[in-house]
Amino acid sequence: MARMRKTYLLTPGPTPVAPSTLLTMAQPIIHHRTAQYEEIFQEVREGLRYLFQTDQEVLVFASSGTGAMEAAVSNTLSPGDRVLVVRGGKFGERWAEICQAYGVDTVNVDVEWGRAVDPERIRAILDEDPSIRAVLVQASETSTGVKHPVREIGEVVRPRSETILIVDAITGLGVFDLKTDAWGLDVVVSGSQKALMLPPGLAFAAVSSKAWGFVERSALPKFYFDFKKERRSAQKNQNAYTPAVSLIVGLREVLRRIREETLEVVFRRHARMALATRQAAQALGLELLAPESPSEAVTAIKSPPGADAQSITRHLWERYGVRVAGGQAQLKGKIFRIAHMGFMNTFDVVIAVAALEMTLRDLGLPVKLGEGVAAAEEVLSGEV
Amino acid sequence: MARMRKTYLLTPGPTPVAPSTLLTMAQPIIHHRTAQYEEIFQEVREGLRYLFQTDQEVLVFASSGTGAMEAAVSNTLSPGDRVLVVRGGKFGERWAEICQAYGVDTVNVDVEWGRAVDPERIRAILDEDPSIRAVLVQASETSTGVKHPVREIGEVVRPRSETILIVDAITGLGVFDLKTDAWGLDVVVSGSQKALMLPPGLAFAAVSSKAWGFVERSALPKFYFDFKKERRSAQKNQNAYTPAVSLIVGLREVLRRIREETLEVVFRRHARMALATRQAAQALGLELLAPESPSEAVTAIKSPPGADAQSITRHLWERYGVRVAGGQAQLKGKIFRIAHMGFMNTFDVVIAVAALEMTLRDLGLPVKLGEGVAAAEEVLSGEV
Repeated sequence: MARMRKTYLLTPGPTPVAPSTLLTMAQPIIHHRTAQYEEIFQEVREGLRYLFQTDQEVLVFASSGTGAMEAAVSNTLSPGDRVLVVRGGKFGERWAEICQAYGVDTVNVDVEWGRAVDPERIRAILDEDPSIRAVLVQASETSTGVKHPVREIGEVVRPRSETILIVDAITGLGVFDLKTDAWGLDVVVSGSQKALMLPPGLAFAAVSSKAWGFVERSALPKFYFDFKKERRSAQKNQNAYTPAVSLIVGLREVLRRIREETLEVVFRRHARMALATRQAAQALGLELLAPESPSEAVTAIKSPPGADAQSITRHLWERYGVRVAGGQAQLKGKIFRIAHMGFMNTFDVVIAVAALEMTLRDLGLPVKLGEGVAAAEEVLSGEV
Repeated sequence: MARMRKTYLLTPGPTPVAPSTLLTMAQPIIHHRTAQYEEIFQEVREGLRYLFQTDQEVLVFASSGTGAMEAAVSNTLSPGDRVLVVRGGKFGERWAEICQAYGVDTVNVDVEWGRAVDPERIRAILDEDPSIRAVLVQASETSTGVKHPVREIGEVVRPRSETILIVDAITGLGVFDLKTDAWGLDVVVSGSQKALMLPPGLAFAAVSSKAWGFVERSALPKFYFDFKKERRSAQKNQNAYTPAVSLIVGLREVLRRIREETLEVVFRRHARMALATRQAAQALGLELLAPESPSEAVTAIKSPPGADAQSITRHLWERYGVRVAGGQAQLKGKIFRIAHMGFMNTFDVVIAVAALEMTLRDLGLPVKLGEGVAAAEEVLSGEV
């Protein structure tokens, strides 16, 4: 007897890919040095400008998001440069590690995991040390479910001609509002496997005019992730090196989907799912890791007293086929994370909460079945 | 009226992807930090060792092949190191450009485009300058259709403890015999969109024990393409950064396919297709660019006197739906290239040759219809 197993992917990347996108990408592969490809890539370039809310070129790389993070450093900085890194989670730490690998000095602004950075701390440091060339931060810190105040940080950095703002928006872009141009975000990087509802394998970087000035003066080595070379190719609707063709074909489709829904509605959908999840968790007596500045991309929930979060994530998967993420690094075993990004809506939240309620019951933890779902439904029902 | 258009991809990358592989990759995406993924990646690791003919770990990156070329340089060398680069085409030039970007000095061995390098030239230079830390070469130079004598170069480099051999096998691996371990190839890089019959987006690097010693001492910066970090992850059936999950799932399938066919038969199939194409071209009175050391991956054919190769490739596509490649850089307009890699067999050659015959006729160039096909059939018929 083989039990029918229906599974649900609710992790903060990869996120579910729509069946129609999967089938679009399953079409026979085409050659990239052709008018056929260039027509697709031209549409992709336009769609990315809409998504990033920028008039600048959005560069596309065949890599994971980390590749674009590295590119943001190696293309704008020089050996011995000093930068400010906001370290409030695993991905903040990654910024610092990349800088270290390239001989870039970091002033680390450490923030308690689960809290957002205070822009005034950044202002004070920049005022004191005008030699700082860049501020590196996450729009959404995936490891903690925190949203950093990128807009306010932009206001701090923007007036300084010798400092740029580099934003890891890998789990932020397309989830909540991020106005690249209007907020003065100089380099915004993202990846395909989050709100973009694609498999992993593509990374993006939007680069402001101010940042292009930095690129001109950068003396760090780069080849595959070379912004200038990639922009020159993009302007001819091409890529410097062989693109991940099937993902680009999928990207055209998801960008069409997002334009059709409109960013405004996309953001509202994510906000509603995130709010419903938070309300449900609290109705179940669970504590949020980041109650003050929660990201709409992912909700981090502390495991109840006496329970290891890993036993919860394991049971969710094994018994109910629901895949959520555990905690990373110092948060391992202490939290679990439910994502709300991309090809998700109302009933993905209902599934998550219902599975959580039943898991708590199965594990002998205190729960009143239905209370979380009811709280979620309060948010999810009615007019959209 | 819309004419039914059936198209054929005969370019040296991307190459056709089997429908079953496309549909395998169209399955719902899975999360990579799970036992489910690790089981797949473990099988992939074994399959790659078979394909590369190595007992070493084969590292996998989400990038195009160029990323792995860059990684081979940035992980084994240090600023100011001197290396020997075989420059006999566009990809030989790329080795030199990568080295230049990283401040590595190159001694360039220039070879006429269309000819293979003489290993004795390499020996003479290494004898004269023992400070040379690496020899960089293509197994198959895609821009010219030349196969370089990698095995013989291995014999030259192997006895020298302070020099490694770095091989770009992007269009060589899985096409013809390349014994990574037995021939002393220290770093062998490849990509997914060639003989591996997958969409572009994955790159590989096999690294010898000797080369790992170089990695330990390398002082060039790297982060995304970090060999050591990637090996540590691979040994746990994981990847340092988010892998291109759908391509990894496809990779498992194609590696199964290759093991089933066996490398021996795969190589024989490619050799037969390449020979048939060369015989056909010559029967049609066309000249080969690389008659002396042709690669089994791709055949470069000179356009007949008075004809621009671009008019031939354009007509092949527009009238017959057959996509072949033109020449690159200095060979633009002078050659066209027909590939034989991956998911191809007998009738892909027949299609290429028949389309070529009809194209020559349509363009008013001298041709006797059927003569090329007949020559190809001589090679392709009978016992396999």
